[in-house]
Parts: sequence; structure tokens; C-alpha cells
Amino acid sequence: MLSYIKRILIGMPLPTYRMSHERLGKVQALAVLSSDALSSVAYATEEILMVLILAGSAALNLSWPIALAIAALLVIVGMSYYQTVHAYPKGAGSYIVSRENLGTLPSLVAGGALLTDYILTVAVSISAGIAAITSAFPPLYPWRVELAVVAIAFITIMNLRGVRESARVFAVPTYFFIACILTLIGVGIARVLTGSIQPAEAATATAVQAAQPLTLFLLLRAFTSGCTALTGVEAISDGVPVFKPPEGENAGKTLLWMVTILVTMFLGITFLAHQLGIVPREGETVVSQIARTIFDRSIFYYLIQAATMLILVLAANTSYADFPRLSMWMARDRFLPRQLANVGDRLVYANGIILLGLFSSLLVILFHASTHALIPLYAVGVFTSFTLNQTGMVRYWLRRRTPGWQTSIIFNALGAVATFIVAVMMAVTKFIHGAWIVLALIPLLVMMFKAIHHHYEEVAEQLSLSLRWPTPVKKHTVVVPVAGLHRGVVKAVYYAKALGEDVHVVTVDVNPEETAKLLERWKHYLPDIPLEVLPSPYRSVVEPLMDYVNSFIDEDGHYVTIVMPEFVPARWWHFFLHNQTALVLKWALNYARRDTSQGRFRIITDVPFYLRH
Amino acid sequence: MLSYIKRILIGMPLPTYRMSHERLGKVQALAVLSSDALSSVAYATEEILMVLILAGSAALNLSWPIALAIAALLVIVGMSYYQTVHAYPKGAGSYIVSRENLGTLPSLVAGGALLTDYILTVAVSISAGIAAITSAFPPLYPWRVELAVVAIAFITIMNLRGVRESARVFAVPTYFFIACILTLIGVGIARVLTGSIQPAEAATATAVQAAQPLTLFLLLRAFTSGCTALTGVEAISDGVPVFKPPEGENAGKTLLWMVTILVTMFLGITFLAHQLGIVPREGETVVSQIARTIFDRSIFYYLIQAATMLILVLAANTSYADFPRLSMWMARDRFLPRQLANVGDRLVYANGIILLGLFSSLLVILFHASTHALIPLYAVGVFTSFTLNQTGMVRYWLRRRTPGWQTSIIFNALGAVATFIVAVMMAVTKFIHGAWIVLALIPLLVMMFKAIHHHYEEVAEQLSLSLRWPTPVKKHTVVVPVAGLHRGVVKAVYYAKALGEDVHVVTVDVNPEETAKLLERWKHYLPDIPLEVLPSPYRSVVEPLMDYVNSFIDEDGHYVTIVMPEFVPARWWHFFLHNQTALVLKWALNYARRDTSQGRFRIITDVPFYLRH
Repeated sequence: MLSYIKRILIGMPLPTYRMSHERLGKVQALAVLSSDALSSVAYATEEILMVLILAGSAALNLSWPIALAIAALLVIVGMSYYQTVHAYPKGAGSYIVSRENLGTLPSLVAGGALLTDYILTVAVSISAGIAAITSAFPPLYPWRVELAVVAIAFITIMNLRGVRESARVFAVPTYFFIACILTLIGVGIARVLTGSIQPAEAATATAVQAAQPLTLFLLLRAFTSGCTALTGVEAISDGVPVFKPPEGENAGKTLLWMVTILVTMFLGITFLAHQLGIVPREGETVVSQIARTIFDRSIFYYLIQAATMLILVLAANTSYADFPRLSMWMARDRFLPRQLANVGDRLVYANGIILLGLFSSLLVILFHASTHALIPLYAVGVFTSFTLNQTGMVRYWLRRRTPGWQTSIIFNALGAVATFIVAVMMAVTKFIHGAWIVLALIPLLVMMFKAIHHHYEEVAEQLSLSLRWPTPVKKHTVVVPVAGLHRGVVKAVYYAKALGEDVHVVTVDVNPEETAKLLERWKHYLPDIPLEVLPSPYRSVVEPLMDYVNSFIDEDGHYVTIVMPEFVPARWWHFFLHNQTALVLKWALNYARRDTSQGRFRIITDVPFYLRH
Repeated sequence: MLSYIKRILIGMPLPTYRMSHERLGKVQALAVLSSDALSSVAYATEEILMVLILAGSAALNLSWPIALAIAALLVIVGMSYYQTVHAYPKGAGSYIVSRENLGTLPSLVAGGALLTDYILTVAVSISAGIAAITSAFPPLYPWRVELAVVAIAFITIMNLRGVRESARVFAVPTYFFIACILTLIGVGIARVLTGSIQPAEAATATAVQAAQPLTLFLLLRAFTSGCTALTGVEAISDGVPVFKPPEGENAGKTLLWMVTILVTMFLGITFLAHQLGIVPREGETVVSQIARTIFDRSIFYYLIQAATMLILVLAANTSYADFPRLSMWMARDRFLPRQLANVGDRLVYANGIILLGLFSSLLVILFHASTHALIPLYAVGVFTSFTLNQTGMVRYWLRRRTPGWQTSIIFNALGAVATFIVAVMMAVTKFIHGAWIVLALIPLLVMMFKAIHHHYEEVAEQLSLSLRWPTPVKKHTVVVPVAGLHRGVVKAVYYAKALGEDVHVVTVDVNPEETAKLLERWKHYLPDIPLEVLPSPYRSVVEPLMDYVNSFIDEDGHYVTIVMPEFVPARWWHFFLHNQTALVLKWALNYARRDTSQGRFRIITDVPFYLRH
């Protein structure tokens, strides 16, 4: 049944030989790798305005200089990653760069920051995408959380089916979005310059009163909020191996293109928001307000909203490639459970995909699918991993000193310093708004990684054959505890006889009347097999049995097998209709194992008796 | 750890020989068996008034005739049970009387009705007891649900420890309650007759407007609501065996005493409520209002509230004897899971006690600890079981015709007809207020009892040795699936060799690289034991193994044991760090068993490897 549902949702399993690696040209790669970065223009401007508005409508004028500062930062980070892609043709994720250049601890910090951020990317992108839709169709607004969870479930299932990063699927929405936004900006600027535009509906509203004074702190908070525009720029650097050779060359060029497009779109949207006097408000996004002001509710307005939604879904989708891949790497390095490195039926890292879907749905539900509420958590992790990546590169150049390293190190150092400063600013300005959650979470994650690693190391040592060879079996006793006499019991006794010579059938005397009846029936049906009776003044089944079993374990290499006749019910609820003594006994055995080093020689075997109805 | 908490809460286990049966004199028995019945005066009058007030303050005058009708019904039911206790010295619970005189289906209806009612008795009594406390201490009112759940948890734990129905524990609060209420009534009537009483605070409030017309339907609903006064009168009849001999004689006299006291208290409270012009309202019970009017907030007022609380807790406690006892009987008759007939560590039917605690807590939470909301569900089941019990007795006299049967049958028939009419009236008048829940639940419970019975019958047939004798073991093959080579694997291979001659060690080729490495290490460490490789193009571990195992099962009596090396982690969270292939394989085996009748010959043995850290 479950298996059937799984087949319908996920599809039939794929054979291993179909695992392949597609290589992409620059135009395709731009589409595949830049959706995360480009999609952030859907919310970055709005986040700046939402902070500034706290100081009243007049403060909105400051959005333009802030946007210019962010654009400058974007260029610095872009140039820094431009150096990286040339140095790491096998892919320069922050986890790997940190591990190779900075050591284990920084790499775990980067890993924790990245995993957190991939989850947040899904939550933020889907929330923003749903906001684009509910801006266009306000009656859907109350259903935004449900819509977001459904969208995440859909993306999760598609990824479990194994959407390969097919360039065709990605190219259309990405270029469509770029075209839409650039057209919006072009038409908008033209109409602003020619003065042919009507004042925005929002601008005609009464000026918003200042709730807070316009402090430097507020300005910095507006700046760091806008820095979400930078999220996703690392994707090209992570994905260098998917480029056609020469990988570094092609990735570098694509990166420059992406940064150019991103800066243009971000500055364009911010400029228009400023010129049109857009005031951020609940229920409609800033991009929607701009598009509505310029195009009214024409078909073009709806196209922009649809394009925004689509690119945001693609952005979320990139995390579905990144999160499982990073957790697979960390699982191989034994910092995460090894199941995360298992390749599923459809040749994807299914466990990672499912975890990502669960965690991001949880975030969306907890934060009511509000992009604005999620943003303070978002970018701290991104900038932490930026900083570690670029610091790692500085270290790399110092070690390698390959030709031209002097230029590269300057750009990487500039990037490292800039992103470090911004990361600290973020931690401070957005601390109480949610950044503390991530700042607390990352050390906890690092501790978890270390605990997992420690466990695997311990296990490896305990399992090592070179350290100690297991004791061979010298003696084997079989104990069959029975509580009645029926076909299942007889089957278990026969089976026990097949396992060894030394077989003991015992019953625990919980109820003297019933024990007497049992002994009588036993003599009648199985006269050749003696039935021993264990006294139990406290009616416990487990303790007398355990004592009996332990009485056999007198020397090293003496194994005792406990053969339990067990019902396997035909329906799940039948489970509750039978005493689960076999289960209880297993638990007791596990629990008691530390009492005695002999514990390792007791083995329980259930002889299943399959009930038909 | 869990075991330790259990010991602290429940105490050490008790040996079987300490199970004893106390016999009670009449005075003690009255205390033990009547708390449920007597405690209903705490809410019965209030329930009448709460319905009448819907037709405005003036309608409250009708409470007196309604109370008289209820008192008459009480006498009829009392007289009917008086016949029963003489006929059934071994205890005349409705389930047993119905089963013996009416057949299986009526007994199951009675069983379902009684189990439901025992749960409701706990929920109603505890809610009313908490209401007595919050009436005296209004700041506690918002915490009533929490208080009720804590009270239920406390009673549950006390019963799990095994509070024997010790007469001493019960005598004090029951007689204290009787004394308090009779004093209240005596002083109240004296003051009313001498005209020395102040008008009640409630009576000075403006008259309540009629929300509904005063219809016959409303009157009947007020009557049926007041019939909750009858709940619990069956307790003496159920408990005949605890009386000193002659049991029937003593039980009969005690029953008459109980009915007399109950009628006096119920009529007295209703009379005072009427004379003092008490209007029912949220936050303070009617009894509390009466006591406050008569005694102000003196120490005596608080004593009455405390006595009410105590008797209601005792009333709830009687269900903790009745529910587990009835479920034990029904479990022995195979209508409920057999675990309900297990005697626990402390010589009580622990599973029944726990179920009662859980279900009644759930009810209290769902109905916000409101007695008024619970009442419509309550008495339908009681009157259904009354009717069945007394109808059963009519049948009994017709069959036996023991001396004096003519008188007895008249009283029982009168009781049966009267309670049947009231049961129908209840079902109709309180249907939409909640009675439908019970009316829907009882048939569902009956269906469940029958399904459980059917299952046990089926199992008994499948297990019968006289019908078919199991096939002896003719051939035994041992398969050891391994995924690596370490101490746990070597131990499992040694163990497998001890089980039989025909041992096959296999590995599933999920990852060709790792398989090659494994083969090499295997040759080095275990050169004498061949390792077979099973291909798995879809990377599934389970399916190739299942096919391999099934390939051995060629004839009847060929058993295949699958020996699985299994890690037993030292901490619970380590479970998530290892592939649980053994578990998955077990599930798959259970799931696939229906594919082939050979399923019954596959046995899985986990060879545990206990990890130390």
C-alpha cells in the first residue's frame, strides 16, 4: 500500500548505470545556476524600504544610496568569486574550500551555515513566490501558508522523482524573468523621464509617520536587509564542474554576466520604487506595486507576477540540489548520518531531499510564510559562508602562489573583509529580529557534527578486526520460553531442535492454575520433550527468564539462543490483541546488557507464526 | 530510567499470595459503594435548574415537581435492584446479568454502555469536584481543566499502586459528606421556616428573561437532566460479593439505606434551591450558592465544598474499580484485548486503569471540565444498562420461578419499563446536546467487541493442534547477509556456523567499487568462507536478498534462517546514525509473506553487536 503510493508519487526505481553528468554551456549554466541570485530582486528592495519606513516616509529617499552600496558590495563579492572559480574547477563550495584551506572547525561552521541557509532559501523563496501570487490575487492571501506548504511538497516530490538539472526546464523561466524585469525597468524609467506616469496609488496615501528616529543603526539595518540581494551568488562557484571545459574560464564569464544582470535589476527596481514613491505594505509586494503603477492590471502585470513566482520556485529548487549534495559530502566525511549518502531509487539523495522539505515547511508554518519575518534569519549564514570561503581562498593563494596569485589574493581578501564586516553588522542589527536563532543554531549544529563524527570513530574502533578477533562459538544452548501449547509453539520447538543439541523448553509460572493445565496438555501432545517450570512469585515473565538464560552463560564463547514463538498478525490492530512478550523480552535484554559483559552472547530469535486473518 | 520512575510512582511489585478479598459490614459497604450515587446530588439539582432557566426565572418553580418525579423513579429503580441483589449474590453487573439472561448482543450493548459510563463518571465527577473547589476559590476557575487532569492523574497513580477498597479510607469522606449535606438541609429548612434567612445574592439579581418557550420538551429535558441523580445506584448490586454473608440480605438493607439518604439529600437540596431563589450560573455551583446563602463564607461553607470535592473524587475512584473489573471480564470472554486481563505488578488490572485515566482525561480536556457539557452524554448509557439489567432479571424470574418470584418480577418489570422510558426520553431530549455521541459510540463499541472476538476465535482455530500438526524441520539453511567486514560480521558468521551445516554468506552489490574492496578484505581475513555476491542493478538491498532466500525454499519443512549482524547502539540517537537494514528486511518479510505460502519457513535472527559508547 505505502509502497504503491510511493511508486505513483516518485516513479519506478532507476538502474545505477543511468546516473550521468550533464555538462552545460554558458547560456544554459546561467539559467541553471543564477535563479537563486536573480530571484532575490523580488524581495531585496522591499526589505530595505520596510526598515526605512520605520523612520517615516521621508526616510525612503535613503533607499537609493543604500542600494548603491549594496551594488558595490555585490561587485566586490563577484570579483572575489571570479578568482575562486578559476582556482577550483572541481567546485568551490564553502564547506570544501574551508576544509581544505582552514581546517575542520571552520568547515563545520561553513557546513552548518550553508545547511541552515539552504533551508531558509526554500522558505524565503517560496514565501516570496506565494506573495507574488497573492499580490495579484488578494483573495488567496489568507491561504498563503497552505499554498507555500503545498508548493514545497510539490518541489520535494519532483526532486524525489529526480528532476535532473535540465537546462531546458530552467532556461525558459529564468530568461523570461530577466526579460520581464528589464522591460519593466526600461518602460518604467522611460515613463518617469517623460513624466507620462500617474502617481502611484500608494504614494497618494497619507505620509507614514516615523515610529523610530532615523539612526545610523536603522540605516545599517536597512543596508543589511538589502544584502539579501547577494544570496545565491555563490551558486556558480559551487557548480563549476557542470560547465563545459574550460570550466573555470566559462564559469568566470558566466559569473560576470550574472553579477551585471543582478546589479542592473536590483538598482532598476530600487530606482523605480523611489521615483514612484512606493510605500511597502502588507498584502502586496513592492515589485507588484511598481508593476501595477506602470502597467495597471494589464496582462503584462500578471506576466511579471507569474515570472516572479516561477523564478522563486526555481530558486527554491536549487537548494534541493545543494542541500542533499552538501549533506552527502558531510555524511561521507562522517559528520552527518550515513543514510544521507545513500542513493535512492531514483538516483537522488532522497533522505536529504525529504529533510529539506520537512524543515523548510516547518519554517514556513512557524513564520506564517512571511518573507519579511524570515529575512533576519536568512543572510547571516550566507555571509558567514562567504567570509569563510574567501578567507580560505586567501590562505590558498598564500600556499600555492600560482602565477597571478597577487591579483587574486587582493580580490579575495577584499571580499573576505567586506563580507566579514557585513556579517558582523547583520548579526548586530538583526540580532533581536531573528538573527540570534541562526547564531545560536550554528554552534549547536557544529556540536552535533562533532558528536556524530565521534560516534562513528568510536564504532570503527570497536569493530576493528585488527585490534581484537571475536571469540568463536564453543558451546550453544537453545532456550524456548512458552506460555501455552499450540501450533506456533510446536513449530518453535521443532525449529529449536534443528538449531542445536542442548534445547530447554521452559514456561514461567505466572498463574499456577494455568501452568498445571499446560503441563497436562504438554504431556499429552509432546511427551518426549521435558517442560521446565520457572517460579515467578511477582508474576513477571521477563526476570525469571533472564535469570534462567544467564545461568547458562558460564564461560567465554557459550552462546544462548532464545527461540520465541511469535504471532505475526494479519492486520495492524491485531497487534494490540496479543501480549507482546517477545518485544518486552528484547527490550529487557537490550536494557540489561550492561549488567554483564556476557550480554553479547544472548541472541533472540522470533519464530514467526503468520496469522491468516 | 523509565523503570525507576515507575517504581517511585507505583511502588515495588507485590507477590501473588497477597491478593486477598476483604469482606465488608453494612456500614463500611455503604461508604465504599455509595459514593458514586450520593455524589450526584452535587450536580443533579443544578442540571434541572440549568435547563429550566432557559424558559426564564419563573420556570424555576417547576424544579420541585420534577425533583419529586425523579425521587419516585429512584425508589422504583431502588426496589428493582433490591430484588436483584437477593438473586445474584455473586454480583449482578449489567454485563453479567444480560449475558446470562438475554444473550451475547444485549450483554455487549450493556458492556459498551457501562465502559462509556465509567469513563464519563470519572470525567463528570472530577469536573464537578473541581467546580466545588473553584466555587470556593474563584481565582482557580481558569485552571479548572489543568486541575481536573492533575486530579485524574493522581487517582490513576493511586489505583496503579493498588488502593484496595479499604473501608477506612472511604468511610470518613462519605459519612462526612452525608453529615455536611444533611446539616446544610436541616439548618436551611429551619431558617427558611423561621424566616430568619437573608435573600440569596443570586435572587436579588434581575430576573432572567426566557430564551425559549416553556414546552413539554423542555420540561422533559429538565427531568432527564436531573435523572443523573440515579447514576451510581447500581454499584451495590454490582458489589454484592464484598458484603459479609448473608450477602444478599446485607446488600439489600444497605441499598434501602442508600436510596433513603440519596432521596433525602436530593429533595432537600432542590427544595432549598427553590426556596432561596437560587439561579444557576457559571463559575459557582448551586450547592455552593445554597451553602453560601445559609452559612455565608464561614468555615462551614468551606467544609461543605471540601466534602463535596472529596466525595466526588471517591465517586471517580469507584470507576477505577469498576472499569478494570468489567474490562477484565470482557477480556476473559475475548471481547476485549487479553492484556486487560493481565494482573500487574501491584495486583491490579493496570492496563484497564491506565486506559480509564487516558480516556477520562481526554474527555475532560475536550469538554473543558464542564459538568454541564458532559451531562448530556452521561446518563444515556446508565439508563441503557439499567434497562438491560432489569429486563434480564424479568427473564431470570420467568425461568427460575424461585419462591416469591411473582413480587420480584413485578418490581423488576416496573423498573425495566420506567428506565426504558427514561432512556428513550434522554436519547430524544438530549440528542443534539451530546447524547448522539454515546448513541453512535455504543454500536461502534459492540462492533469492535465482535471483531475482537472473531479474531480470537480465528486465531484459536489456526493454532489448534488437533486440526493440523506442524511440519517438522527437514532441512535447514542459514543465510548471512553482510554489508562489510568487521567484528560484528565475523561474530555473526561464527554464530551461523554453529546453527547448521548449510551456511551461505552473501553481500548485495549496491556499489561495485565497495563490493570489490570488500571481496579483497574478505579473502584476507576469512579465506575459508566463500562470500557470494548478489547483483542489484536498482541498488535495492531487500529484493535481491529476498529472491535469494526464496530460492532455497523448495520443499515443505525446509527452514531458512537469515542471520543478520546488527548494531545495538548505546544511546537512542545513535539509532539514526546506522542503516537499519535488518529492520527494513523484517518489515519486507512480514509484508511479502502473503506472496507465498512458504513465508512461514523464513526466520530472521539478529546477532546483536552491543556498541559501548
